[in-house]
Amino acid sequence: MHRHCRSSSLARTWSTLRARIRRLQHASPVTSPIDATAVNVPLRFIATKSHRAMSTATPAPELQEPHILRKSVIASANWVSLKKIEWVDPRGVARSWETAERTTRSGDCDAVAILALLKGGSKPTETVLTLQYRPPVDKLCVELPAGLIDKGETAEEAAVRELKEETGYHGNVVRTTGIQVNDPGLTNANMKLCILDVDRTLPDNRHPVATPEDGEFIDRRLVPVRELLAKLEAFQQEGLAVDARLMHLAIGLNLSGFLTDTADGSS
Amino acid sequence: MHRHCRSSSLARTWSTLRARIRRLQHASPVTSPIDATAVNVPLRFIATKSHRAMSTATPAPELQEPHILRKSVIASANWVSLKKIEWVDPRGVARSWETAERTTRSGDCDAVAILALLKGGSKPTETVLTLQYRPPVDKLCVELPAGLIDKGETAEEAAVRELKEETGYHGNVVRTTGIQVNDPGLTNANMKLCILDVDRTLPDNRHPVATPEDGEFIDRRLVPVRELLAKLEAFQQEGLAVDARLMHLAIGLNLSGFLTDTADGSS
Repeated sequence: MHRHCRSSSLARTWSTLRARIRRLQHASPVTSPIDATAVNVPLRFIATKSHRAMSTATPAPELQEPHILRKSVIASANWVSLKKIEWVDPRGVARSWETAERTTRSGDCDAVAILALLKGGSKPTETVLTLQYRPPVDKLCVELPAGLIDKGETAEEAAVRELKEETGYHGNVVRTTGIQVNDPGLTNANMKLCILDVDRTLPDNRHPVATPEDGEFIDRRLVPVRELLAKLEAFQQEGLAVDARLMHLAIGLNLSGFLTDTADGSS
Repeated sequence: MHRHCRSSSLARTWSTLRARIRRLQHASPVTSPIDATAVNVPLRFIATKSHRAMSTATPAPELQEPHILRKSVIASANWVSLKKIEWVDPRGVARSWETAERTTRSGDCDAVAILALLKGGSKPTETVLTLQYRPPVDKLCVELPAGLIDKGETAEEAAVRELKEETGYHGNVVRTTGIQVNDPGLTNANMKLCILDVDRTLPDNRHPVATPEDGEFIDRRLVPVRELLAKLEAFQQEGLAVDARLMHLAIGLNLSGFLTDTADGSS
């Protein structure tokens, strides 16, 4: 049975799924019977492939869109609340999930992180990292400059402000990503990443002065972008914690060495 | 006053800080009076630079290592608990922080994510992404295959198992990162990333069959690694949520276009 979808975002998701599947057929090579069933099946079947993979030759039952029945607050503190989600899976089975949510979100995005690219002069492109003690992990953490987006503020405005506050550098936004979800199995916390160009030759950027908020104690480190992964591994070996998003960016930057094909896609 | 550090991990962090600073002097160019004070100051001053930056010419008071006084459980559910951390900042000010913790961690690492590199044959290197509904964000999410590390299991064993369960592919681990913290301002949740080589020419990998756990409905998509960022942006435009770690990896993979210097570091 095809249930009415009670979530607008979920409705958007499902209503665009068929179009996505059509468009991505070439992008997502069909390499197995499982994928083969994916590209033209009725919308309600889209979540069934892994089920079919483990099922017998008998056809799978019709599946429905998963949807949330209700969310209840288990506990709400000043900045974080713990909630229980009761939802219905694609087979119609009622299930529950627990999630942590920030209480501070004003728009559709919690935070922005800043990848600053320091250019100008003869030095290679550098980026600036922040080092600060993080109570949740009880360690000094290596991260990209970042902060929560204030009410009425755009991600780009927050990025320029936070980079200046945390590192003293003034930059110009050259790119902003779409919303990314930080840890979707645990929380709805999300973010955008802004890439900022920082002109090292500007007077303000020669002697940058950070202006942290009360209670912020943020150290900074400049690292040549091409050496980012090696520097992060050095931080880890010395007992510091490294943010997963920053580490993944560094791994992507170094991934060419793991690929057998060339940049033009040929083998 | 130099307080005794009550946290072993924090103790490790601070005890290695002087060595790190010494080693990273060349890696982290001293470009401002702030950084200049960083490299040879007494250990207890390491967190004071941003304070100094906003202070007057009068010397900053001696700072101490931040440390946790106590952690109390606000609420604990089946999989997630919400806790209040009372901690002392580098200026000796008592502060509180709220954090969400998984109740499932058995070792020092919660989870593993898998970057599978499908090689062999004439096609370019591909990776496999998972699509699954995530109640915390109420959307279909695009992620790397991933899962919690079982008790007594290594990250590598979990990576091979989860890749097989979620996608049907069998791979061999070629690299494992150190522990990465997912969202250190909000949670202690952490992970390792394993890079696995998958031989597309093996019979088992020609027609991979996923074996998801009960309640898992996981779709998969193969994407040429070099097209990863464009594909993720296409998913976002179609209303799907993209995991921040995956997105950052794709941005790193495409970062060369934003750099003014060449791979050998020259401008």
